[in-house]
Amino acid sequence: MTMNELSRQEILLQRLEEENFDQVRSMLASFHPSEIADLLESLPGKSRRLLWELVDREIEGDVLSDVQDAVRAGLLEQMQPREVAEVTKDLDTDDAADILQDLPEAVIDSVLLSMDAQNRERIASALSYPEDTAGGLMDIDVVSVRADVSLDVVARYLRQLGQVPEHTDSLIVVDRENRYLGLLSLAGVLVNKPEDSVGEHMSKRAGIPADTPATGVARIFEQRDLLSAAVLDGDDKLLGRITVDDVVDVIQEKAEQTVRNMAGLGEDDMFASVLTSTRRRAAWLGVSLLTAFLAAWVIGRFEATIQQLVALAILMPIVAAMGGIAGSQTLTVAIRGLALGQISRQNAGPLILKELRVGLFNGAILATVVAVVATLWFDDQGLGIIIWLAMIINLTIAALAGAVIPLALKKLGVDPAIAGGVILITMTDVVGFMTFLGLATLFLLP
Amino acid sequence: MTMNELSRQEILLQRLEEENFDQVRSMLASFHPSEIADLLESLPGKSRRLLWELVDREIEGDVLSDVQDAVRAGLLEQMQPREVAEVTKDLDTDDAADILQDLPEAVIDSVLLSMDAQNRERIASALSYPEDTAGGLMDIDVVSVRADVSLDVVARYLRQLGQVPEHTDSLIVVDRENRYLGLLSLAGVLVNKPEDSVGEHMSKRAGIPADTPATGVARIFEQRDLLSAAVLDGDDKLLGRITVDDVVDVIQEKAEQTVRNMAGLGEDDMFASVLTSTRRRAAWLGVSLLTAFLAAWVIGRFEATIQQLVALAILMPIVAAMGGIAGSQTLTVAIRGLALGQISRQNAGPLILKELRVGLFNGAILATVVAVVATLWFDDQGLGIIIWLAMIINLTIAALAGAVIPLALKKLGVDPAIAGGVILITMTDVVGFMTFLGLATLFLLP
Repeated sequence: MTMNELSRQEILLQRLEEENFDQVRSMLASFHPSEIADLLESLPGKSRRLLWELVDREIEGDVLSDVQDAVRAGLLEQMQPREVAEVTKDLDTDDAADILQDLPEAVIDSVLLSMDAQNRERIASALSYPEDTAGGLMDIDVVSVRADVSLDVVARYLRQLGQVPEHTDSLIVVDRENRYLGLLSLAGVLVNKPEDSVGEHMSKRAGIPADTPATGVARIFEQRDLLSAAVLDGDDKLLGRITVDDVVDVIQEKAEQTVRNMAGLGEDDMFASVLTSTRRRAAWLGVSLLTAFLAAWVIGRFEATIQQLVALAILMPIVAAMGGIAGSQTLTVAIRGLALGQISRQNAGPLILKELRVGLFNGAILATVVAVVATLWFDDQGLGIIIWLAMIINLTIAALAGAVIPLALKKLGVDPAIAGGVILITMTDVVGFMTFLGLATLFLLP
Repeated sequence: MTMNELSRQEILLQRLEEENFDQVRSMLASFHPSEIADLLESLPGKSRRLLWELVDREIEGDVLSDVQDAVRAGLLEQMQPREVAEVTKDLDTDDAADILQDLPEAVIDSVLLSMDAQNRERIASALSYPEDTAGGLMDIDVVSVRADVSLDVVARYLRQLGQVPEHTDSLIVVDRENRYLGLLSLAGVLVNKPEDSVGEHMSKRAGIPADTPATGVARIFEQRDLLSAAVLDGDDKLLGRITVDDVVDVIQEKAEQTVRNMAGLGEDDMFASVLTSTRRRAAWLGVSLLTAFLAAWVIGRFEATIQQLVALAILMPIVAAMGGIAGSQTLTVAIRGLALGQISRQNAGPLILKELRVGLFNGAILATVVAVVATLWFDDQGLGIIIWLAMIINLTIAALAGAVIPLALKKLGVDPAIAGGVILITMTDVVGFMTFLGLATLFLLP
């Protein structure tokens, strides 16, 4: 299946290259909006704009809501406010709000103005919650029922409605004041006796406050295996619902973000313009350059030592590099533990201790191998002992730093995935060069 | 809510530390199985075993199916085959099979033998598919209906059943030979006229072949925003269904794996024993040590040059490090693009070209900064020119390597996230040291 899909997409891209636009247009009809979103993301700038022009107006809104933020911004630039209003009007409120949030303030207003009153109100209320909270994720189109009616009444009510919002697996049970009581699954309506009341068969699952951060929402969905949940205001009144498809996007997005942040990519679009990519990555490279200069400065303090014993220059990168690699392993464990909410006051101590032990163990093994090789290579036992000591020290400190840095950054409110790596490498470089060259200066020079 | 949950968990852990077991047991009753799974994952070995002893037998199966593979293996070691059979018997087949797959072959057999015949057959058939395919993810408990019956008949049938498997949002429509035709949502049963036929309201969504890899399943669910899908054998016959909660786990797991693989952690449990962690990470450290030795050997070729100009030893780590960092950024872009299936034959070329341009741009900026600093620091214009050239060359090659290495590894069937980083760093170190020291030997020495 995947094989077939790939070739479908490849054929479409070939037709696009051949500028056979009629055929591209007719092929696009068989693609799901999110497949088109994937295609757009995988195309360089010019072809992307071209393909976007060929997408059917009817599904432009769905495609926009599926595409990555960075890519979406580019597509929106090609559109008039009136067009944006047009293509977003049939979307779920959360998806529409999500798209509008990427526009400049002035454009948002003109988009809202070209909508009819009802749509404007829906979207404006969704825009009042930050994008990465339960309120920003929720859809306000819900079917709610009262606890005291019978399942039979519910069934007749649904038949009258004629349709329910997409991804409805449950109805939301509220009291007279629209206060949330629980969920009634559609299966519950079907399998139970028609004369039973809604209250008898609803599940009293907790609702989600509108200001819960998106990551918290994702954790609740994952832990409880939910398909949907009610979103509530401060008085437990029903505001809307979140469905699992939106949560899947949050989970995917967060995981991506960790990977991108650890490499200092920031938000990225694989085919952002060369200038945009250069600029986004430059900050990280600039910081890294500063730490590289710091390491060079440390080495510079030992110029005279190196002059007398060039073997030190040859071996010193090994000490620094191995510290960096071992420290990064610990760092990754701690960053993921924090992201998954698995590190608390209680287990931070044991975690640091464990990582310290692992660092010492691996440090001892690596240091011994390097010491033996160094002794044989340069026929200098003193050099072997010095590098052995320096590596043990650096790998132990690397393990300690790898565990402590993310915890400290988290406390300071800084994303450990962004800053952790640079701080760690700075430490392992400085400590590595300083202990190795320092010990050599003390003990090896005549 | 999240705040409250955290403190609930913290209180429970405190009680556990105080060995107040009765209270721990009664507190556990208010925890969802997957919250208990999270707690177990966050505990070091001894406390983890202790807490596991206190978990109610009734929910042990659910907890086991929610816990990470590496942690689960440890918990299973504490249990007898008979106990395992007991706690898995009420689970979905996919979850039960998942747990059994972690046991040694001989233990699996004895667990299967202590089950009743019906369960044994269900589980054995689930075990016949690899864990990471659609067949391994599917649950064989499904409600299927025929296309030619009326919705009214379906409703009566469901009421007779009295319950449907968890997470049922749709019924699966099959023909007389159990061949898959489409899905009928429960909402569809409720909102349409009772006399309409199933066939009129089913959606003809494609089913998923049982041998589809888990990542392919995840992509289909994400792209189509599915809640559930039918799994089919080679003849389009219905085998079971996959629900979105299992897919969420796959997505989460895959993203985790990339992060862990890029750091060379392999499968890891935050509180694996010190020895296990040491062993798991040693392989990666060993390979990294080899590449560090290779870099040292390259530097060693230029011993005489460094002796004459120690400034080279001071500056050379900058050339190598900046190449490594810039290359890692490109590498991450390419690895994620491949993981998301967004890199194909058509766009690999443009991607490499774009990354090359970004590398050249950033290389030019960084090289100029470093060249100016080096010239001023050592009052040596020649040195400035040499390091400028070496950095441009290394960053360009780093960008090229960062884009090409993952594509090549993918072609060879090797996970780019595992091997990509080491190969890249080896290249940027070797090229960095070689060009910088080589150019210096050619042009700077008297």
